[in-house]
Amino acid sequence: MKLIKFIGLSMVASSLLMGATSVDLRKKATEAGLKAIPQDKKELMKIIDPNNVITDKKVALGKQLFFEPRLSKSGIISCNTCHNLGMGGADGVPAAVGHKWVANPHHLNSPTVYNAVFFDAQFWDGRSHQLEDQAQGPMQAEPEMAAPKPLVEERINSIAEYVASFKEAYGKDVKINFETITATIGLFERTLVTPSKFDDFLNGKDDALNDAEKEGLNVFIDKGCVTCHSGIALGGTMQPFQVAAKYKFANIGDFKGDKNGMVKTPTLRNITETAPYFHNGAIWNLADAVKEMGSTQLGIKISDDEAGKIVTFLNALEGRKPEIVYPQLPKSSDKTPKPDFN
Amino acid sequence: MKLIKFIGLSMVASSLLMGATSVDLRKKATEAGLKAIPQDKKELMKIIDPNNVITDKKVALGKQLFFEPRLSKSGIISCNTCHNLGMGGADGVPAAVGHKWVANPHHLNSPTVYNAVFFDAQFWDGRSHQLEDQAQGPMQAEPEMAAPKPLVEERINSIAEYVASFKEAYGKDVKINFETITATIGLFERTLVTPSKFDDFLNGKDDALNDAEKEGLNVFIDKGCVTCHSGIALGGTMQPFQVAAKYKFANIGDFKGDKNGMVKTPTLRNITETAPYFHNGAIWNLADAVKEMGSTQLGIKISDDEAGKIVTFLNALEGRKPEIVYPQLPKSSDKTPKPDFN
Repeated sequence: MKLIKFIGLSMVASSLLMGATSVDLRKKATEAGLKAIPQDKKELMKIIDPNNVITDKKVALGKQLFFEPRLSKSGIISCNTCHNLGMGGADGVPAAVGHKWVANPHHLNSPTVYNAVFFDAQFWDGRSHQLEDQAQGPMQAEPEMAAPKPLVEERINSIAEYVASFKEAYGKDVKINFETITATIGLFERTLVTPSKFDDFLNGKDDALNDAEKEGLNVFIDKGCVTCHSGIALGGTMQPFQVAAKYKFANIGDFKGDKNGMVKTPTLRNITETAPYFHNGAIWNLADAVKEMGSTQLGIKISDDEAGKIVTFLNALEGRKPEIVYPQLPKSSDKTPKPDFN
Repeated sequence: MKLIKFIGLSMVASSLLMGATSVDLRKKATEAGLKAIPQDKKELMKIIDPNNVITDKKVALGKQLFFEPRLSKSGIISCNTCHNLGMGGADGVPAAVGHKWVANPHHLNSPTVYNAVFFDAQFWDGRSHQLEDQAQGPMQAEPEMAAPKPLVEERINSIAEYVASFKEAYGKDVKINFETITATIGLFERTLVTPSKFDDFLNGKDDALNDAEKEGLNVFIDKGCVTCHSGIALGGTMQPFQVAAKYKFANIGDFKGDKNGMVKTPTLRNITETAPYFHNGAIWNLADAVKEMGSTQLGIKISDDEAGKIVTFLNALEGRKPEIVYPQLPKSSDKTPKPDFN
């Protein structure tokens, strides 16, 4: 069995629990008198910030912020609205509606936040590489949480308990701005990993998968699914989109992936819990989705029998969720900007 | 100090942890050959159903349902959306928006679900007397969750894990209908009680309140606030609305209370966490709300100093919240009716 494409979820998870901070590499290089950095490399560098080590206090604060509806313009939409930690980290609808009940303009399906720490790329078009960046997108986007940066900053800074918690977590000189707020959410999201019996199997417990699940894994590998759905997340990397292109997804809208036509491969962890499937949420049944992937991406026909076997394996990827105690959120003050439904 | 109007939250809470079931008294009486029951008495009777004793399994199921967005037509609005257990059991906005971003037609503020088990009446117009009935309202209401009864029943019955949980909780012959679903939510809500240091004080710990809080309590009693804000919930009973009527609340819309012009008095437990205030959420500052109540309901002027003292007492009503582990929700099946945003 060719398993080199997978990495079992064990100690790997904890080694990823650190914050990363964006750096303008061109600016740094110019300041240091180094030679010019090509424009397209500007955004690619990140540093591991030694002051941004993950701690229990930061994670607890990040959890509050993840469930915090006052990070939206209306005051009623939180990260958890579309990345519901009780629903596989997604929302169970084809495409999210957000502020003013407006649908995502590309009708894009909300990806799961569970195990997103293991993704090479965030968003369907892979435009972010870190959870900390990702959290900045939906919060500001008009059809999602619709909260401009200054509003987010003003709301959090107006709430005494949040200010105290940031100081406790980062030290008294912390600047509570949009970047630290979203970075703290990212730190909480790094804890959202879900080991499964497939990991137990990869970690050496041979009987963690039953015979049917092992057979399903073989079919999954033999058919070529593993070409894209590999690595610790069984997905999360950018891959060519609609390779075979025998069939165009229904309602594709104007979504074409990134500038090279690449699309982020969704993780298969907890995939049984995150219907509907694909970037447009067009297919609800998992076996149908498997067959669709065969024709669209691999240019092969996957039979009902084979799809059933693969689904049996995919069931083994349902992970053990971390226990989340629902956070108590601090109260607003007289200075807290009011909810705005418009 | 005249404290006979209050009851401390201690053993009282547990004695209320039982389910009630609506009974059509007229029908029962006719069947039994008893004399006719007046029409207006028809709805007033409830039985304590010996088969509806509260158990851990029912509460756990009720918690899942409380956080279950598939109980709404869209699939994205749950009880917790407007009765957020992390925000004092309310939503922090003047009037909820629901399905299709439509505002509550009367612009009514979402009351807290914490300690609602102690209310004589539910809803601002007091039209329900039990949490089990209350839960039926917003779930069906067009501007709230907008889910007709058959949709709610079909959704839950299509999800194997819910069916199994209902059978485990109520026995294999349970009928999983709108009434049992909402009643189970009500059982969970009965556990949402928040003892405070005021209860510790009433239960005999004299130093649980400091001098300023005791002084505030005296002002609260002397000014007459306790006339309506009494009993274990410090509210929750029907009272005349705008008694003094020197001032009409802003944006009152067409809300007049019940047919006798009575309105449910909000609980003062956790009131510091549930701004904005009043049926229309028109006032954000608690001291302003206290003064407003003085003029509108009591026909007196409450000074800034007095209002400040009363607010000091009200802070002592912030309760210790039960720890809520965020529930994992079971996955939909192929038969589960799809989300509908229209």
